[in-house]
Amino acid sequence: MCELLGMSANVPTDICFSFTGLVQRGGRTGPHSDGWGIVFYEGRGFRTFKDPDPSCESPIARLVQEYPIKSQAVISHIRQANRGNISLENTHPFTRELWGKYWTFAHNGQLTDYTTLPVGSRRPVGETDSEYAFCWLLNAMETRFPTPPDNKLEVFRYIATLCDELKHKGVFNMLLSDGEYVMAYCTNHLYRITRKAPFGHATLIDEEVEVNFQEETTPTDVVSVIATQPLTLNERWLRMKPGEYGIFYLGEQVETNSQELIHVPFAEKKPGNQAPSEPL
Amino acid sequence: MCELLGMSANVPTDICFSFTGLVQRGGRTGPHSDGWGIVFYEGRGFRTFKDPDPSCESPIARLVQEYPIKSQAVISHIRQANRGNISLENTHPFTRELWGKYWTFAHNGQLTDYTTLPVGSRRPVGETDSEYAFCWLLNAMETRFPTPPDNKLEVFRYIATLCDELKHKGVFNMLLSDGEYVMAYCTNHLYRITRKAPFGHATLIDEEVEVNFQEETTPTDVVSVIATQPLTLNERWLRMKPGEYGIFYLGEQVETNSQELIHVPFAEKKPGNQAPSEPL
Repeated sequence: MCELLGMSANVPTDICFSFTGLVQRGGRTGPHSDGWGIVFYEGRGFRTFKDPDPSCESPIARLVQEYPIKSQAVISHIRQANRGNISLENTHPFTRELWGKYWTFAHNGQLTDYTTLPVGSRRPVGETDSEYAFCWLLNAMETRFPTPPDNKLEVFRYIATLCDELKHKGVFNMLLSDGEYVMAYCTNHLYRITRKAPFGHATLIDEEVEVNFQEETTPTDVVSVIATQPLTLNERWLRMKPGEYGIFYLGEQVETNSQELIHVPFAEKKPGNQAPSEPL
Repeated sequence: MCELLGMSANVPTDICFSFTGLVQRGGRTGPHSDGWGIVFYEGRGFRTFKDPDPSCESPIARLVQEYPIKSQAVISHIRQANRGNISLENTHPFTRELWGKYWTFAHNGQLTDYTTLPVGSRRPVGETDSEYAFCWLLNAMETRFPTPPDNKLEVFRYIATLCDELKHKGVFNMLLSDGEYVMAYCTNHLYRITRKAPFGHATLIDEEVEVNFQEETTPTDVVSVIATQPLTLNERWLRMKPGEYGIFYLGEQVETNSQELIHVPFAEKKPGNQAPSEPL
């Protein structure tokens, strides 16, 4: 399995704190040592850092932790390989262009019976079920909307129906972004939190790091973080339900199919067991 | 204008030495301070580092200089903006998928009358003539070869004819790679060098760095470097002619349309004027 991390914010925000928690799970506090990657959008462009080596040992991951790159939409992933060997072409996130925008995708889970899904001219480069699913999504999006609709939420609602199809093929927790919107789709493990004023303190589960968000923010900042497992001890993360999707824009969740909020009790710090390994 | 740097090698080779020379021209010894980028292929995958800030000041560029990432195909670019503002989406190289492979492109020059060239569904994200030309190349390649021919050189020969068309629209010095082959096309400024045994010493023009390639290589290593301007003082760089192309594979130039080799005299070190600014 793998772990996902996504962020949506209303002002350019760095993700150093959350990313520092995540990378520990890439070989130190978690088993996800088969590569990692992160994509930061800036305007219509993006920058990406990737490594097929464990994130906890990567000099590139250290740079990303220490060099505050500010972005309003971020997608990150640490990998524990199942389908596809350990290599750069199989390292998430994947980014492709559609409608003159860069779309970025990362997946946690495993699919079966996916190789007959039509991908058109969008061929996978690596061997993962994840990249294949991304190619299928893009091909279906372009087929359904040869030009993108004015109301972009229509696109994401359509993507949610596609994700519902993939749900029947296995575990499909996903993060997807076009640089403006960040979409999360859950089949079993995905948590979200929206931070806004009044900001408090937070302590990472996986590393002895505490942050006082009040010192790092202004009162109008809104930042949502989506992750496979909660990253902090003393905050309320909301667990997403199977089949639930959330669409985030400028830090806020602007649409979801969920009526129900599942509050997660504060996580307990158990050294050595902070990031549960998933059986899938 | 901009500067290009490409490498093809028969064994995974780091480009720290050449890149160290190039980044100085990104704001210190040269005027190309409007961003920089580099793509390293590893297997079928790649990793890329980009920054719209000057390369000579970039912590990310420093990492790339200090952390030896070994690759057999590299494309890099430092930018002095002409078409398109300074932003990440306008920062070269550009990478897109075609035929299940990642293609990477960087351009030095300026084009006119290019916006009517058909790009099909491969829409540019930024505003540069360069990215537009890349989209046109990919669209033409896919139209001409719905599936890639067995002899890959056929593709590159076809690309050369496309480049000949672009040559009539302005200055078009280009580097292009699919991760196996590296292609260089010249309209005015492009130099190349192939290093093989017996290896010697080389000294950068733009920085007080000397390397003894004999200590860094084995006797069977072959590495070709292509650059807008020679990067070293005491080596023979070959100047490419207008309309000349070279296709490099595993370090060797395996095809060119040039019969004639133009030997360049050893460069002279003139502090402060090492990397001439181009008027175009």
